[in-house]
Amino acid sequence: MRILVTNDDGILSEGIYTLAKTLKTIADEVVVVAPDSEQSATGHSITLNQPLRVKKVKFFETDIEAYAVNGTPVDCVKLAVEAILKDRRPDLVISGINNGPNLGTDVIYSGTVSAAVEAAIMEIPSIAMSMATSHIESYNGAADFACRIAKKIFQLHKRNETIINVNYPTIPEKKVKGVKVTTLGIRKYENSFDERKDPRGNSYYWVSGTVRDIEQSEESDVAAILNNYISITPIHFDLTHFETYKELKALDIEK
Amino acid sequence: MRILVTNDDGILSEGIYTLAKTLKTIADEVVVVAPDSEQSATGHSITLNQPLRVKKVKFFETDIEAYAVNGTPVDCVKLAVEAILKDRRPDLVISGINNGPNLGTDVIYSGTVSAAVEAAIMEIPSIAMSMATSHIESYNGAADFACRIAKKIFQLHKRNETIINVNYPTIPEKKVKGVKVTTLGIRKYENSFDERKDPRGNSYYWVSGTVRDIEQSEESDVAAILNNYISITPIHFDLTHFETYKELKALDIEK
Repeated sequence: MRILVTNDDGILSEGIYTLAKTLKTIADEVVVVAPDSEQSATGHSITLNQPLRVKKVKFFETDIEAYAVNGTPVDCVKLAVEAILKDRRPDLVISGINNGPNLGTDVIYSGTVSAAVEAAIMEIPSIAMSMATSHIESYNGAADFACRIAKKIFQLHKRNETIINVNYPTIPEKKVKGVKVTTLGIRKYENSFDERKDPRGNSYYWVSGTVRDIEQSEESDVAAILNNYISITPIHFDLTHFETYKELKALDIEK
Repeated sequence: MRILVTNDDGILSEGIYTLAKTLKTIADEVVVVAPDSEQSATGHSITLNQPLRVKKVKFFETDIEAYAVNGTPVDCVKLAVEAILKDRRPDLVISGINNGPNLGTDVIYSGTVSAAVEAAIMEIPSIAMSMATSHIESYNGAADFACRIAKKIFQLHKRNETIINVNYPTIPEKKVKGVKVTTLGIRKYENSFDERKDPRGNSYYWVSGTVRDIEQSEESDVAAILNNYISITPIHFDLTHFETYKELKALDIEK
């Protein structure tokens, strides 16, 4: 099994280090292609206006083949599959382990999840791995779980277009209650902007905000994490709203 | 009706000019909040690492209230709704008119569509408008159609979370055959990277690629445009793959 590993926290982050090193114990080949700097909240962004550079780098103390790219997580997956690994197509792409949650509505902003979505668009099974909070003592439990899911992936992936989105609780391992297959919950924010004045008296805004407390379905990823479960959500990239599609077809919309 | 208009081609582009000006003929209030530079293919990216600036600007020769933002289309919608128009919540958000198609799989990369998706996350009905190719003689037909859809929106939008994604044929108006309600088709690319050497002999890559000729469902947006119809696709932002969700729940996945 050849696994491509990427992330959005950047190639120097602990999450990708622990993930790649742990996957190396179960895979024939692990290749890291990740952003050279943090790319959080870049969503499914790709870089059209400047050229991409690929730099082969030493990956911590390991002998894992690794490349840093001056682009987004989606750029990394595209470049890896179509250029760097052109003759060595990965069997699986794993993105993470993200230093914070990718739950509910938020997955659409996530560089971590978008990298996995890009793999699925390219018909490669993929997993996005995130820690459920950013107060992280160790990535080991999540990395071990990634190995277990990776080994099972071809059973889980009836369709290559499905992505497995995992959020792993940041609590002592003993307290983790088990695994829940979930749907995406709802994450909304309040006070999303922090307005400040620069030294010249001009306004500027920081994206900010706290998560609103919204009632969640029991089936949701948000509820699973609150209840100390590992959350696994199957996601896909077909944004068609089929129910509304049927309703609109019944309406007569003229030119 | 108060309409917020944004885009990803930037506030100086012809598409947003024609759209806003035309909407002004049917709406009580039109406010433009758009990126100060081109933001194509930024997907659902938001700006976390630098502050956002808002500049009130003169919008061509019109008296339309307009603001330029140094961020992505999604930043613009968030800032507009939560700061600039905090006490004047828009009834509708229209994004475009994009200088090129947003069809099928590609909608996930699209700044134009992502702005509309952000509005839906904020529970504001929204429309994304795009021209089906970038060889555009006039945006007028698409802008007129946007008015018709805008007036109908509360009938079309049974749920605020649904986004209407419109692609408008770039052919003479007389040849436009009508309107089709569609599903998202498939867009995949080949030769996605163009590798070059800089003057120092080092490689760099441009994102490139041509659309692969893939068989499409007759119901798809891609097919509708090929057949000279205006395409309307209802889309949403719940990426849960419910079918796989049910299948995975039936499997026993241990911790």
